[in-house]
Amino acid sequence: MAQPRIVILGGGFAGLAAAKALKKSPAEITLIDRTNHHLFQPLLYQVATSVLAPNQIGFPIRGILRNQKNTTVILGEVTGVDKDQKCVIVSDADRKNVPIAYDYLIMATGASHSYFGRNEFEEFAPGLKSLADAVATRNKILQAFELAEAEEDPSRHRDLLTFVLVGAGPTGVEMAGALAVLVHTTLKSNFRRIDPASARIVLVDMSPRVLGTFSAHLSQAAKQRLENLGVEIRLEHGVDQIDADGVMVAGERIASKTVIWTAGVAPSPAGKWLKVETDRAGRVRIQKDLTVPGYPEIFVVGDTAAFEQDGKPLPGVAQVAMQQGRYAGRLIHNRITGGKQPAAFRYFDKGNMAVVGKGFAVLQSGKVQTSGLGAWLIWAFVHLQFLATSGLRLSVFLQWMWTFLTGQRGSRLIVNHHASAPVSKPVGEAARGAA
Amino acid sequence: MAQPRIVILGGGFAGLAAAKALKKSPAEITLIDRTNHHLFQPLLYQVATSVLAPNQIGFPIRGILRNQKNTTVILGEVTGVDKDQKCVIVSDADRKNVPIAYDYLIMATGASHSYFGRNEFEEFAPGLKSLADAVATRNKILQAFELAEAEEDPSRHRDLLTFVLVGAGPTGVEMAGALAVLVHTTLKSNFRRIDPASARIVLVDMSPRVLGTFSAHLSQAAKQRLENLGVEIRLEHGVDQIDADGVMVAGERIASKTVIWTAGVAPSPAGKWLKVETDRAGRVRIQKDLTVPGYPEIFVVGDTAAFEQDGKPLPGVAQVAMQQGRYAGRLIHNRITGGKQPAAFRYFDKGNMAVVGKGFAVLQSGKVQTSGLGAWLIWAFVHLQFLATSGLRLSVFLQWMWTFLTGQRGSRLIVNHHASAPVSKPVGEAARGAA
Repeated sequence: MAQPRIVILGGGFAGLAAAKALKKSPAEITLIDRTNHHLFQPLLYQVATSVLAPNQIGFPIRGILRNQKNTTVILGEVTGVDKDQKCVIVSDADRKNVPIAYDYLIMATGASHSYFGRNEFEEFAPGLKSLADAVATRNKILQAFELAEAEEDPSRHRDLLTFVLVGAGPTGVEMAGALAVLVHTTLKSNFRRIDPASARIVLVDMSPRVLGTFSAHLSQAAKQRLENLGVEIRLEHGVDQIDADGVMVAGERIASKTVIWTAGVAPSPAGKWLKVETDRAGRVRIQKDLTVPGYPEIFVVGDTAAFEQDGKPLPGVAQVAMQQGRYAGRLIHNRITGGKQPAAFRYFDKGNMAVVGKGFAVLQSGKVQTSGLGAWLIWAFVHLQFLATSGLRLSVFLQWMWTFLTGQRGSRLIVNHHASAPVSKPVGEAARGAA
Repeated sequence: MAQPRIVILGGGFAGLAAAKALKKSPAEITLIDRTNHHLFQPLLYQVATSVLAPNQIGFPIRGILRNQKNTTVILGEVTGVDKDQKCVIVSDADRKNVPIAYDYLIMATGASHSYFGRNEFEEFAPGLKSLADAVATRNKILQAFELAEAEEDPSRHRDLLTFVLVGAGPTGVEMAGALAVLVHTTLKSNFRRIDPASARIVLVDMSPRVLGTFSAHLSQAAKQRLENLGVEIRLEHGVDQIDADGVMVAGERIASKTVIWTAGVAPSPAGKWLKVETDRAGRVRIQKDLTVPGYPEIFVVGDTAAFEQDGKPLPGVAQVAMQQGRYAGRLIHNRITGGKQPAAFRYFDKGNMAVVGKGFAVLQSGKVQTSGLGAWLIWAFVHLQFLATSGLRLSVFLQWMWTFLTGQRGSRLIVNHHASAPVSKPVGEAARGAA
């Protein structure tokens, strides 16, 4: 009898956990992702702020799964699902639409950032979800200092050195802290006409506090720490307007050439592809075993799934994604090997952390609430542990030590893919001798 | 009295050596480069073949010179020189044309690759001169394996897995060797439908041997080594045609989706900007003290300069650039401090090296000619030594050890800047709480 075909869409935390849980299953597994790498999203802000290089948080999915012989990895983008014919339609690396049949389907297609219906903001305020996003944001930030240094008129320096971060969740807070440390340490002594430490960093959110998912006490600790680092915090007001020259916040104009979007998450179109019920955010409503009602062979996991536990929806974080992916993988393994079916999925919340600047984090786990260097060490340890390979763990560990001790960052590069060297005109002498 | 203004165009080996030689000079120095980083070009092929990450061979110029208080670094692109008014016209980061006056000018604007008048080849056979080029080539190579793995028709695998390198100088030979090792070690076990080791690597050059600047003996050793690694070598024939589906070599069609240009160098347009005499290749003819005839305040150094020594033009290599840059810097220092003028420039050739595959290099220095692991160790030591910072030396050393021992490479990423995540449609629930 042919082995059951399991298709996993997405190689993020959820998809990868599912694939690994199926390591010993007698099945033909195909994992499809639109990038070639698993991305450690919680550290994306460190690429955007030049601490880490892209290769330190991205690792080829097929490299991670190279010893898992039952699994084929395909670079491709899902464009649709036919849940009655049981196949997914995938636009592969060559842009052809290829149907791939499945007996079991795990949708782990994640989320992207959302502009809350103001998509025109994207041009001026890029978001942060992929490595390409992080590199673009890094270019933009570093370029701002270059523009200011090249500008001989000091009156223009202030606008060029104003950075606005829209959204004070973990990404916004971590970005603001990392930016503040960047201007005060790494960039020190690097400029002659400007003082990078004079840069203005403004963090905006419409909620009444930063890190809204943490306790009020830890929110306050994070806010205090950011203010000590020189970050201006504007709460209880959203951004009404963003253009090439700045933002409007609560009727006030803040001139800025560098606005970064750190708010808002929108799930992938999994609900549309499946043509099934979603919550208001667009996440697919799933049952207690993570399957779609009426389709026991289709699992939806991670950021693109809506799952309520104790009357509250689970948050879109890596832990939920990993636990759901692992659960779905194990359930399918048991089904095809005749093992017993597990109990309903239940999320075990290990806690929440966010870094604020250098050597400081806030941490809450169960009844424990703490902030400071200790929390930062735990944060560093936990994040290293969850990196995909031992090579990455070593590399990121060494980089953090280096940055902590010297203030130097790992990847302060502007790599402009549009301004490559132009081809030169026909030449004489140099032309001899080769090709 | 105001300090003399020294403008250095280019932050490559020549420009950086010149700046460093002026470290203690009572002068206002401005170094202008169109990228923000000094690039260690000899290792560019290692970025193209995923061994190193871009940040391991590129480092911010202003970081290197941060403690040199007499020097301002500007990101900008030179668009002209007015040698009578003594100013350079620079298009800065903001695309404005700004005149910058000088008392001394050092042009170290380097070289780009040349298609020998066949610029239409560029679309199908990208070259390798900048970090953006190397990242694009890396994407292209890794993408070829992805396309092949996604292709269910095995008859198409061979074309997709054929790599053609045009030009068998150091870059072509080093690329071919690194590609061969990539397919035999790093990519092993990573694919299910294709065998990466079956990839065909073809190295083409119209000269009768590879590494034409080395002795016949070492050329032969390099050729033998490449053949042992499975590289096909086609000599004494140029490439007549390149298109999207392959190349024509000596009347034979080689189907290939991945052609890489490793031949040909064209100097920067320094001669045109200065409106002075050049050699046939377009390099500026300079005098024994590296100045332009009639303009004792204008120095031209490195790849963009034509300098004959013992009746032969100096090659366009890093050593020449560094020695010329240092010479020009010292000469200017002596002139403005009243020190004695140095003797005419003379290049001291320390030797030539090229890596072929893993743990093997060819080396010639004076009468010494050697190849093998010993030469590779010397190569590694020398190249580490010339990296810009101790951080890079440590990082590259560790990466090489890791790659040597495990076969894993440091940066096997496809980061596609054009296929970023699309902005999602307006959402409901997720929109609450932020921004």
